[in-house]
Amino acid sequence: MGDGNDNSKADANGMVKAAVIVAPGGPVEVRSFPEPELEPGAAALETLYSEVCGTDVHLLHGRLAGVPYPLIPGHISVGRVAETNGRVRDVDGREVLPGEIVTFLDVHGTCHSCWYCLVAKASTRCPSRRVYGITYGAEEGLLGGWSERIYLKPGVRIVPLPEALDPLLYMAGGCALPTALHAIDRAEVRLGASVAIQGSGPVGLMATALARLSGAGTIIVLGAPQKRLDVALALGADHAIDIDALAPEQRPEAVRGLTSGRGADITIECTGEPSAIREGLRMTRDGGTYVVVGQYTDAGDVTINPHADLNRKHLDVRACWGIDLSHLYRAVQLLARHRETFPWRTVISGEYPLSRAADALRDVEDRRAVKAVINPRA
Amino acid sequence: MGDGNDNSKADANGMVKAAVIVAPGGPVEVRSFPEPELEPGAAALETLYSEVCGTDVHLLHGRLAGVPYPLIPGHISVGRVAETNGRVRDVDGREVLPGEIVTFLDVHGTCHSCWYCLVAKASTRCPSRRVYGITYGAEEGLLGGWSERIYLKPGVRIVPLPEALDPLLYMAGGCALPTALHAIDRAEVRLGASVAIQGSGPVGLMATALARLSGAGTIIVLGAPQKRLDVALALGADHAIDIDALAPEQRPEAVRGLTSGRGADITIECTGEPSAIREGLRMTRDGGTYVVVGQYTDAGDVTINPHADLNRKHLDVRACWGIDLSHLYRAVQLLARHRETFPWRTVISGEYPLSRAADALRDVEDRRAVKAVINPRA
Amino acid sequence: MGDGNDNSKADANGMVKAAVIVAPGGPVEVRSFPEPELEPGAAALETLYSEVCGTDVHLLHGRLAGVPYPLIPGHISVGRVAETNGRVRDVDGREVLPGEIVTFLDVHGTCHSCWYCLVAKASTRCPSRRVYGITYGAEEGLLGGWSERIYLKPGVRIVPLPEALDPLLYMAGGCALPTALHAIDRAEVRLGASVAIQGSGPVGLMATALARLSGAGTIIVLGAPQKRLDVALALGADHAIDIDALAPEQRPEAVRGLTSGRGADITIECTGEPSAIREGLRMTRDGGTYVVVGQYTDAGDVTINPHADLNRKHLDVRACWGIDLSHLYRAVQLLARHRETFPWRTVISGEYPLSRAADALRDVEDRRAVKAVINPRA
Amino acid sequence: MGDGNDNSKADANGMVKAAVIVAPGGPVEVRSFPEPELEPGAAALETLYSEVCGTDVHLLHGRLAGVPYPLIPGHISVGRVAETNGRVRDVDGREVLPGEIVTFLDVHGTCHSCWYCLVAKASTRCPSRRVYGITYGAEEGLLGGWSERIYLKPGVRIVPLPEALDPLLYMAGGCALPTALHAIDRAEVRLGASVAIQGSGPVGLMATALARLSGAGTIIVLGAPQKRLDVALALGADHAIDIDALAPEQRPEAVRGLTSGRGADITIECTGEPSAIREGLRMTRDGGTYVVVGQYTDAGDVTINPHADLNRKHLDVRACWGIDLSHLYRAVQLLARHRETFPWRTVISGEYPLSRAADALRDVEDRRAVKAVINPRA
Repeated sequence: MGDGNDNSKADANGMVKAAVIVAPGGPVEVRSFPEPELEPGAAALETLYSEVCGTDVHLLHGRLAGVPYPLIPGHISVGRVAETNGRVRDVDGREVLPGEIVTFLDVHGTCHSCWYCLVAKASTRCPSRRVYGITYGAEEGLLGGWSERIYLKPGVRIVPLPEALDPLLYMAGGCALPTALHAIDRAEVRLGASVAIQGSGPVGLMATALARLSGAGTIIVLGAPQKRLDVALALGADHAIDIDALAPEQRPEAVRGLTSGRGADITIECTGEPSAIREGLRMTRDGGTYVVVGQYTDAGDVTINPHADLNRKHLDVRACWGIDLSHLYRAVQLLARHRETFPWRTVISGEYPLSRAADALRDVEDRRAVKAVINPRA
Repeated sequence: MGDGNDNSKADANGMVKAAVIVAPGGPVEVRSFPEPELEPGAAALETLYSEVCGTDVHLLHGRLAGVPYPLIPGHISVGRVAETNGRVRDVDGREVLPGEIVTFLDVHGTCHSCWYCLVAKASTRCPSRRVYGITYGAEEGLLGGWSERIYLKPGVRIVPLPEALDPLLYMAGGCALPTALHAIDRAEVRLGASVAIQGSGPVGLMATALARLSGAGTIIVLGAPQKRLDVALALGADHAIDIDALAPEQRPEAVRGLTSGRGADITIECTGEPSAIREGLRMTRDGGTYVVVGQYTDAGDVTINPHADLNRKHLDVRACWGIDLSHLYRAVQLLARHRETFPWRTVISGEYPLSRAADALRDVEDRRAVKAVINPRA
Repeated sequence: MGDGNDNSKADANGMVKAAVIVAPGGPVEVRSFPEPELEPGAAALETLYSEVCGTDVHLLHGRLAGVPYPLIPGHISVGRVAETNGRVRDVDGREVLPGEIVTFLDVHGTCHSCWYCLVAKASTRCPSRRVYGITYGAEEGLLGGWSERIYLKPGVRIVPLPEALDPLLYMAGGCALPTALHAIDRAEVRLGASVAIQGSGPVGLMATALARLSGAGTIIVLGAPQKRLDVALALGADHAIDIDALAPEQRPEAVRGLTSGRGADITIECTGEPSAIREGLRMTRDGGTYVVVGQYTDAGDVTINPHADLNRKHLDVRACWGIDLSHLYRAVQLLARHRETFPWRTVISGEYPLSRAADALRDVEDRRAVKAVINPRA
Repeated sequence: MGDGNDNSKADANGMVKAAVIVAPGGPVEVRSFPEPELEPGAAALETLYSEVCGTDVHLLHGRLAGVPYPLIPGHISVGRVAETNGRVRDVDGREVLPGEIVTFLDVHGTCHSCWYCLVAKASTRCPSRRVYGITYGAEEGLLGGWSERIYLKPGVRIVPLPEALDPLLYMAGGCALPTALHAIDRAEVRLGASVAIQGSGPVGLMATALARLSGAGTIIVLGAPQKRLDVALALGADHAIDIDALAPEQRPEAVRGLTSGRGADITIECTGEPSAIREGLRMTRDGGTYVVVGQYTDAGDVTINPHADLNRKHLDVRACWGIDLSHLYRAVQLLARHRETFPWRTVISGEYPLSRAADALRDVEDRRAVKAVINPRA
């Protein structure tokens, strides 16, 4: 245990409450865990908020391989440092102190020793990666955010929130913002480039805001329902196309109609729908760039025509997996700087206590919520 | 007519013979055309060789849209300058003189005025492009290489052959070499990168040689029949995999077995088979690059899994259409420099007079020939 | 002469007035020229505005080589199409019609035939380039903007102004905006990158606005006098450093102080001062990018330390020469879209009739004006 | 101590001999050190060869800052694994076993935790880096290669030599090969590009071989004396220019004379001479690339003209600092594959026992040797 300057313990018995997906298919229930002992270099957070995202719905239904149930979900979270054991430093070399509000990279354990890390320099493909709230089970500790306490193992990358950045505003970005930032980096948006964004879920909405911040020209979001499209327009889209109002083959045509008949310079896929790939290739102009970031789970196959959809169009297709610390770090800075630029918080549809985690999952699954946030203090 | 310093006219009557695809489906017959009058800035070539490539087989069967029959095929050719009308210059600014051996870019008329040329800088997508031997019909003049004479319109990009470069050796590269060079540029091969090449036709073979010249590490060619694989090995492949001996799903596995279990750093598709795309994505390592250059005609669709084949692999897919002058120019320099490096001529399986053009097409179609060459002087 | 639908002739005698730099060193005087006859494909503009930029001051003093005096200066201008001879099209393929407000690329005659254009694809280094208002003398026609009429030769790249874009607002961008856009493209600004900009002249100010539109993080402008720094702050700078208040060696230190001690991720040089190069290298962080765009004339040498300023810092230095049509075209679209984002017009300090062209030059030279504009109608 | 399966100890008393630079300015003497105890994760090498490079001469003269004397030099070495304490793995995940011949990355301790490592992804600028034979003093252990034994701390990146790769052949590459590989990567050599290489020391010679392996067109090496130029020609140069036979201002001219009057597409500086920078900028073509890799110590300033040498030429200048594991790993693979392509060993002029280390330094300094190798077993 640390230096004991912590009087925020969850209850008198030193027990911590967390919401747990017990097994694939559920149920979701609140359980109690003992307050963790900190090994040297570790820290404990008092959780302020944690996210409910589409991945958590997949976790509930057991759609991801290699997940150790029972599981405390919540990969992106924000909290107050409760204690540390020894000096813990952030990426800027500053010591992280109790009382500070911080977030952390859910991906932990990137080895920096393997061929992928050191030779290919593709660290998001490092086989040693473990992910808070996804690949760590509840038996390994408080390693998910739907919990009063989060245990930060030694080596977890901690990013303090700038004072100007409200924790709830940070959650509006959530995991979608660094994911979208990685995709936008891959897209290499030049000033004035037209950008089509497929999908109006959190990643699509964050990609919209980032495309606008990058100086894109015409930005077209294709999604549904209208409520989400309204958020897209508020976050910088010029046009919002309701996909439910168009047959799939009409969607590329609609984008061409808004881009001098040529298609978008850049299209960013943020849907999770396999069939979106065919549409996306077709709504991108010849010689343009197509970024695929939404296919995080296996939702089936898609049929494309490699002559017309790839070769003749001279396309660049850039698939984008995962994030690293740089994306999280920069996302935090971006949100702090641009906290007034957009009404970010409109992305958050609801705040739920631990006891209502199952409701949060249902609201996200049914698209009643754009994004739900768990507040373990509520 | 030019300044008349030409005594090589095709026959006493000033008539020129050419092989013509009369209509989609054939026949192919030799016809006579009047010797052309040169407008200012134009030149006439006495044809030495012209190529028979897979595209010509497609032309015979009417598989390309917008082709004006009857047609004199032959897009890549080499000849002796017979005459010029006024000063004609090459890209280095040197005057092109009668008697010189030259080739020229089949693509003509790139406008350098449109949005694709000037803003997108994607000149291979310029809508004004016309192509010798493909989109110019016989009624527009001697604008294909299967002819005793080729009429070079003003503005055609002429590239003289260095003295060291034998015209028949040049034909071994043919249109496949600059096409493969464009693909290799897109692939950005770093020293030591492993490269898988799908296809052992002319483009696949030239990509093999260029990957070797680029300092690739392990090079694996997947193709058939064995005779072509032998050529691949002679042109620099380390491994040649007979695709007829493996089920499609075994081919990625075979490549992984030769690349530390990871898949190739770079895969280059040169097949024309839609199903090759799925295999190619799967034989490329996570974070690797996949270049699609073989899908020049619409041969149907392919089904892929966007989660497993794109997103999770964090792939770059780079489709590659057409060539421009830079590729032809550099291909000529490369062949001249490396004329002894590889047994290039083994690519040429046969030389045919104009009267046997139909046989040449058949031999290419039946894969009896790797590459056939038309010699109008034979 | 064209089809005669023009009743805006400059005077009853068909004579056109223009301001002329008679010889290196001056004087500058207003002269009359005959109304030009239009060759096919040409157009004539009734000039609305033309620019007075730093290059014009160099022209006055004879500091550029190969300039044919007497000269009508004015390379970037905007005007109303007075007449055309035959169909003249813009880069989008639309016919340019009399009455439309247009601008045009000052660079004319890029050959698209030479090694630089076609092989190196470095068209801004094409040796055939001629430049309106700089390398065309008055004896060759009305080929500069300080004139009631501008003669647009066939092949000049014309860009119509969108209706929303006021011609005077367009002049606020002037030649500095596409120049800065080229530099910003070279800089590859990623979201959140810190950017230092050396110089608060028109190019530095436009680079500031474009860095802000690109989503840069901290933007620091180093310049003088305070009036220009105020404009920089209005155009998006976070910090404006008065160089007159600091010794040269203190400037890199000042930038490091604003960038976590590391220096700027990207520095853009827009000064024309050789010594700025040494300072700029030193204010850029290790592994950062330094773009050199301000050294348009030879103002002398600079001493650097290649170990400390280059090698050990692992810098990228990207020098940037000239613009092409893409930069002008995109600059016009950007200004139209962002016409309300910044108070662009604060860049323009004065409007001058032809008769006061010499005053305009003096005000620019003495830095009394940020930018002066010639209005031949005034 | 490890599991004791080691019977190759240096002497009966368990003492190890090493050559030591006692202080800046020397002397160099052989000293005895106790056999090290291995902490868990560490390994000990029986040294086969270690390198004497230009940096060691700088170390002798005290020209590098922050070096802790007395010092055992030798940053790149090859040895036989004598023992390990626990499992030690290479970057491919294979366990490193006693008896294997291995090399290792001299750079140790890159933190993978700081802003440079994780956000800028410029790990060669990580402030935690320590370097064997340079920044580790003899008091910290056997952390340099001029020693019978080398102590490999936990986390040192070990690369086994493929069986086909003779240890002495490996030393011919030495530290120069991965350094040159980093520079060649930065140069992005395309097939057929002309390359000028300034300097005929080890880095210049390795850059020559790598440019040739990358498929460069004309390769021009500028150096001295003739003996080294002969090696350059053997390693792939087309032309070798004796710099002692030309005034500095004639050297760019000589390169232009061999590159169609334009200058090299790419120039790579490998000299350590500040004045080479000015020459190098001037021998590179407009729009070309200049890589600076030779300025590893501060040898003074250079004067350039930023207008003519940078801006007007539209150059890319890419400075290149240090290496990481990827360069060493790939260098080993490249040498193994291309061991017969070039007479690599001609680079090694002499082999020296520990007792003659001072002679080795002198021969390198006086350029009698291209490269000297220490053999502690001799």
